[in-house]
Amino acid sequence: MRERTAGGTLTLPRIGAQRVRANWQEHFAETSDVLKSSKRQQTVVQALDLEIGGSEFIIMAGPCSVETEHQILSTAHFVREHGARVLRGGAFKPRSSPYSFQGHGLAGLKMLAQARAETGLAVVTEVMCEDDVPLVAEYADILQIGSRSMENFTLLEAAAKSSKPILLKRGMMATVGDLLKSAQIIVENGNPNVILCERGIRTFDATLRNTFDVAAIALLKHISHLPVIADPSHACGHRELVPSLARIGVAAGSDGLIVEVHPNPEKAWSDGEQSLNFHEFEGMMAMLEPHIALRGAATCKALETVG
Amino acid sequence: MRERTAGGTLTLPRIGAQRVRANWQEHFAETSDVLKSSKRQQTVVQALDLEIGGSEFIIMAGPCSVETEHQILSTAHFVREHGARVLRGGAFKPRSSPYSFQGHGLAGLKMLAQARAETGLAVVTEVMCEDDVPLVAEYADILQIGSRSMENFTLLEAAAKSSKPILLKRGMMATVGDLLKSAQIIVENGNPNVILCERGIRTFDATLRNTFDVAAIALLKHISHLPVIADPSHACGHRELVPSLARIGVAAGSDGLIVEVHPNPEKAWSDGEQSLNFHEFEGMMAMLEPHIALRGAATCKALETVG
Amino acid sequence: MRERTAGGTLTLPRIGAQRVRANWQEHFAETSDVLKSSKRQQTVVQALDLEIGGSEFIIMAGPCSVETEHQILSTAHFVREHGARVLRGGAFKPRSSPYSFQGHGLAGLKMLAQARAETGLAVVTEVMCEDDVPLVAEYADILQIGSRSMENFTLLEAAAKSSKPILLKRGMMATVGDLLKSAQIIVENGNPNVILCERGIRTFDATLRNTFDVAAIALLKHISHLPVIADPSHACGHRELVPSLARIGVAAGSDGLIVEVHPNPEKAWSDGEQSLNFHEFEGMMAMLEPHIALRGAATCKALETVG
Amino acid sequence: MRERTAGGTLTLPRIGAQRVRANWQEHFAETSDVLKSSKRQQTVVQALDLEIGGSEFIIMAGPCSVETEHQILSTAHFVREHGARVLRGGAFKPRSSPYSFQGHGLAGLKMLAQARAETGLAVVTEVMCEDDVPLVAEYADILQIGSRSMENFTLLEAAAKSSKPILLKRGMMATVGDLLKSAQIIVENGNPNVILCERGIRTFDATLRNTFDVAAIALLKHISHLPVIADPSHACGHRELVPSLARIGVAAGSDGLIVEVHPNPEKAWSDGEQSLNFHEFEGMMAMLEPHIALRGAATCKALETVG
Repeated sequence: MRERTAGGTLTLPRIGAQRVRANWQEHFAETSDVLKSSKRQQTVVQALDLEIGGSEFIIMAGPCSVETEHQILSTAHFVREHGARVLRGGAFKPRSSPYSFQGHGLAGLKMLAQARAETGLAVVTEVMCEDDVPLVAEYADILQIGSRSMENFTLLEAAAKSSKPILLKRGMMATVGDLLKSAQIIVENGNPNVILCERGIRTFDATLRNTFDVAAIALLKHISHLPVIADPSHACGHRELVPSLARIGVAAGSDGLIVEVHPNPEKAWSDGEQSLNFHEFEGMMAMLEPHIALRGAATCKALETVG
Repeated sequence: MRERTAGGTLTLPRIGAQRVRANWQEHFAETSDVLKSSKRQQTVVQALDLEIGGSEFIIMAGPCSVETEHQILSTAHFVREHGARVLRGGAFKPRSSPYSFQGHGLAGLKMLAQARAETGLAVVTEVMCEDDVPLVAEYADILQIGSRSMENFTLLEAAAKSSKPILLKRGMMATVGDLLKSAQIIVENGNPNVILCERGIRTFDATLRNTFDVAAIALLKHISHLPVIADPSHACGHRELVPSLARIGVAAGSDGLIVEVHPNPEKAWSDGEQSLNFHEFEGMMAMLEPHIALRGAATCKALETVG
Repeated sequence: MRERTAGGTLTLPRIGAQRVRANWQEHFAETSDVLKSSKRQQTVVQALDLEIGGSEFIIMAGPCSVETEHQILSTAHFVREHGARVLRGGAFKPRSSPYSFQGHGLAGLKMLAQARAETGLAVVTEVMCEDDVPLVAEYADILQIGSRSMENFTLLEAAAKSSKPILLKRGMMATVGDLLKSAQIIVENGNPNVILCERGIRTFDATLRNTFDVAAIALLKHISHLPVIADPSHACGHRELVPSLARIGVAAGSDGLIVEVHPNPEKAWSDGEQSLNFHEFEGMMAMLEPHIALRGAATCKALETVG
Repeated sequence: MRERTAGGTLTLPRIGAQRVRANWQEHFAETSDVLKSSKRQQTVVQALDLEIGGSEFIIMAGPCSVETEHQILSTAHFVREHGARVLRGGAFKPRSSPYSFQGHGLAGLKMLAQARAETGLAVVTEVMCEDDVPLVAEYADILQIGSRSMENFTLLEAAAKSSKPILLKRGMMATVGDLLKSAQIIVENGNPNVILCERGIRTFDATLRNTFDVAAIALLKHISHLPVIADPSHACGHRELVPSLARIGVAAGSDGLIVEVHPNPEKAWSDGEQSLNFHEFEGMMAMLEPHIALRGAATCKALETVG
C-alpha cells in the first residue's frame, strides 16, 4: 500500500466538505482508521503489478465457481483480452442451500493459479474459514471475505494476518457503519490493504435479487480512504441488467467492478442467471469505455485541483 | 403524448432482450398497459414545449416549498440559466411532522405561475387531495403525486382525469410492481402521460435519509415505456452527496432529474439539509454535462440501431 | 371518551418506569398529546355501548369486503353469538391491484347498518377519501383509516372532524413514531378518540404476508394512553396461523383484536386465504378465552396497585 | 434426543392442517429433515437432565458476558431459585464494535462450569469459530451459534460433529427459510439436537433494537419438529419491555425463553440496557407463571387429542 493525499473521487464539486466530513467523522468515530483524514485521502492497494484505488479503473471478472480447467482458463484468457485485470472464481463456496455446490477446494485454487500463470491476471477468491487462510493465501493475490462472513471476526483477524490484500464484501444486511467496523478490525490487525465491495442489500422489494445500494459507494468514497468496488452481478441477479448496473457503479465513483462471466451461463453450476457470456462481457466493456474515460478525466482534474 | 417505437435507453448491449422481457411481462402482467410492447417502446410526455422521455435529458429544479416571491423567482431565473427546464416547488406540503410547514396553497401556486411567466420554465407541483386537483391543474403544467400518496387511489383517479401530465413518485414502501400498478391506474383512467420517479426507499440502513434504488430505474427503463426520472435530493438527504447521486441517476438511463435548489439552504423552511445552493447547482450542472452528452450519444446510437 | 388514570396494561412488573418513560417522552416529543402523562394514563373510546381501552377485551370480526346481504348478516349473527362486539367489513376498498374489487360503496354501508340493527354490533368500516367522510360517518360507528392512508393527512383531518372514533391502522412501512404522528394529527384536530392498530409491516422476509410487529403493541401500551388493537389476519395472511397470532396479540397487552371472518373463505371476493370460517372463528374464541381472562386478572391487579 | 409423534404446540384449533402443511412442505422442500412429518412431530432435546421441546417450558437466564466469578455465581444461584433451568453467559463474544469486550475465553468457561457444579443448571454458551468447538464442548452442555454466525457453514459443521445440542440463533438478516437451511445442515452432519431461537430481525423501524418476529415462532412450531425458544432481551433491547416480550414468547407457543439477567445491569460490561436485575427477573417469573401454566394445559390437551 502507498498513500496519496489527493482524493481520486468523482464527487465534484466538493460541497461544504470540511463541515460535513467532520460530522461523518463523529458519526463513524469508532472506525476512524478507515476514514479520510488530513494525512490520508486515499489508500492504493497493490496486488501483483496492479494498483486498486489509484488512477486505473480495475475490472475483476470470472465465474462464480471454478468448475473445470477449460472453463476457468478460457474465461481468464477472454476477460484478459477485453480489459479485465483480476480473475475471480470460487474454490470454496458458501452453501446458500444445503445441496448446492461447495467448490473444488485445493484443486480449484490450482486451476486459478494456472490461469494466472497463463494470463498474468491477479487472482481473487473467497476464503470461508480461518483454517483455510494459509492455503488460500498461498494461491490467491487477494482474499475475498464473502457477504455471509463480513462479521465473522475470527476469520477477519486470520485473513488480516495473512498480509494479503482483502476484498471485503458488505453483508446483505450490514449498514455502512457495520462494513466500516469490519474494515477497521482488519486494519487494526495490521493489514491496511482493504478493498470495500458493495454487492446489494436485502430490502422489502425482492423484484431483483438484492437492492444495489449505490449511494453507499458514493458515501464510502466521500468519507473513507479505502478503495471501493461494485458488484453489479449479485446486486441485481439478472444478467440483462448487469451492464446498466456496471455503468452505474462507474458513475458512483467506484474504483472498479467485480463481474461474473461464464463461457456458458445456461450451464453454470451456480449463479448462471446473473453471469454474462463472453459476447455480453465484450459488449459491456465497449459500452463502459467512455464512462470509464470520463471518470479518469474527473479524477485527474480532482488531483490537479488538490495538488 | 406521442409514441416512439425506438427505445431511447442507455441499456446497451441488449442481452437476450426478447426472452427476458417476456418473463417480466408475465411477472407484471397486471400492469401490461405501462410495459413495453411491440407497439410501444417509449412514451414521450409533453409539457409546454418540453418533451420528457425523448432525446433531451430534463432537469427539474427548485425549492422544496414555495416560501416567498423573491425566493421562487430568483431560484427560477438561476436554474433556468443553468440548464433546468422545469421548476419544482411545493404549494401544498405533506406534514412529515405535525408541526411542519404545510405550504402557502393558492398563493404559492400564483408565485409558481409568475415564475413560469418570467422564465418559460414548466411548473411541477404536488397535489395532495382530490378536491385540490382542479385548482392545482389550473396553475401547474405537471401534477406531482407525492410518495405518501402513491397508493391514494382516489387521488390518482382525480389527477388522471385532469388531463395534465402526472409525475408519480414511488412510495418509500412501494415495490417496483406497486409503482407500476399506480401508473396503470392513471393510464386506465384515460391519462397516458405518466412520468415515474425513483426517490429512495426505506430499508434497515438509515445512514442516509433513504436507500436510492437506482437499479429500479434501470429495470423500469428496461420493461416500461414510461419516462423515468431520479430524485437524488430525497434519495440521500445530504446535499454534499446530491451531485454524485445525480450523476448515478444519469448513468442509470433515466430521462431526467428533479433536484432541490434554494437560494439559502441554511434558512430553508423545509429540506434545507438536502437542498443545493445556487453555486452548488451550477457546479453540479457543469459536472453532469459530459455524462449527459454520453447518454445522448448512446441514445442516438440506440435509435439508429432500431431505426 | 373518558379518562382513567390507572393503566390497564399487562406490562407487569413496571421496571424503572419513571426513568424510562421520560426517555420515550423525549424521543416522541412531537406527539406528546398521545403519550401517557401524569394526567392521562389510558383513553377509553366509546362506540355505541362499548368501551375500547377499558377492562373489556374487544373482538372486532367480519369479512374483508361486504359482498352480499346474506354474507354480512350471517357473519354478523355468528360472530356476535361467539363474543364479537364490533362488525368489520369494507364498503370502500383500496385497490391493491388495478383489477381487484373496489367495494359496493353506499349499498355496502346500508348492509352494515342493517347488520347493526339486527345484532347490536357496532360497525367499523374504512373511509378512503375526505369526500366520503360524511357518508361513511353517517353509517359507521368507527371510521377505519387503512394502512395505505395512514399518512393521507387531508383524510386524517376530515375524519377527525367527523367526531366519530377513528381506528388508525399502522402503515406497512411506518415506524412507531410515524403512527404516533398520525394519531397526534387526529387529536390536534379535536378528536381524542383514536384506536391504534398494528397489522404487520414490510420487511425482507416475505415468508408470511407481513411481519407482525407485536413488540410495537407492547411499546405503544407502555408509552401511549391510546387503546391499541391487533390485526392477526393481515399480519400473517395465512388463516391457519391467525389463532396463534390472535393469542399473541392478547399477550402483548392489546385492548382487542380485529379478525377477518367469512362464511366461505374459499369463495371470498378478497383476502379469502387469511379469513377464518365460522367453525374456525368459534374454535379460536374458545382457545382465547382463558388468555383473555388472564389478561383481565392482570388488568384488575394493575388497577388495584395504582388505585 | 427422543421422538414424540404428538405435537406439543399451542396452535389450536388445527385449521386445515393437512392441506396447509403440504404447502409449507413444498415451500421448504430443501429442508425436509427439519419439517414435521407423519413420523416425527416433535424433537425433544436432552441436556443434562433437561428436556427441551417436551412438556416443560424451559427458562435460560444469565448475563450477556461472564465477567467475574461473583457475578456469574450469584446470578446462577438466583435464577435457579426462581425457575431457570439453564445458565447462559458468554465466554467468547462477537465484537459488535472494534473496541467492545471479547470475553474471558477459557477462564469464562471454567466459571460457567463452576456455576453448573454449584447449581445443577445446564450451561449454554456461544462458540464463535470451528477451532474453539472442542474446548467449548468440553465445558458447555449446549453450544450456541450466534446470530452473526448462523450462515458460518464451517462452524455449523464443526459444532454439529461435537454431538452437543446446538442452540441456533436466527441471523438478524435471515429469513425463516434461511434458518431452516442452517438447521438442516446441522442435522445432515449427524446432529439432530437443534434448538431454534428467534431473537429479532433488522427492519426499517429502529425504535427498538430489533423487530421481534414472533409470528416466525408460531410458523416454526407449525411446520418444524425442532424446539423453538424466544430471546426477548435481544428482540427489544430495552429492559422495561423484556417481561412483555417474554409473555408474548410464551403465547407464541415457544418451548422456552433465553433472557439476560445481571446482578447490576447499570454496570454490566455489555448489554446492560437490556438485562434484568434480580428483582426484575423475579417479578417477571411470577408474572409469567399463569401464562406458562395455560400453555401447559393446552399442550396436554393437544397430546390427548392426538393420542
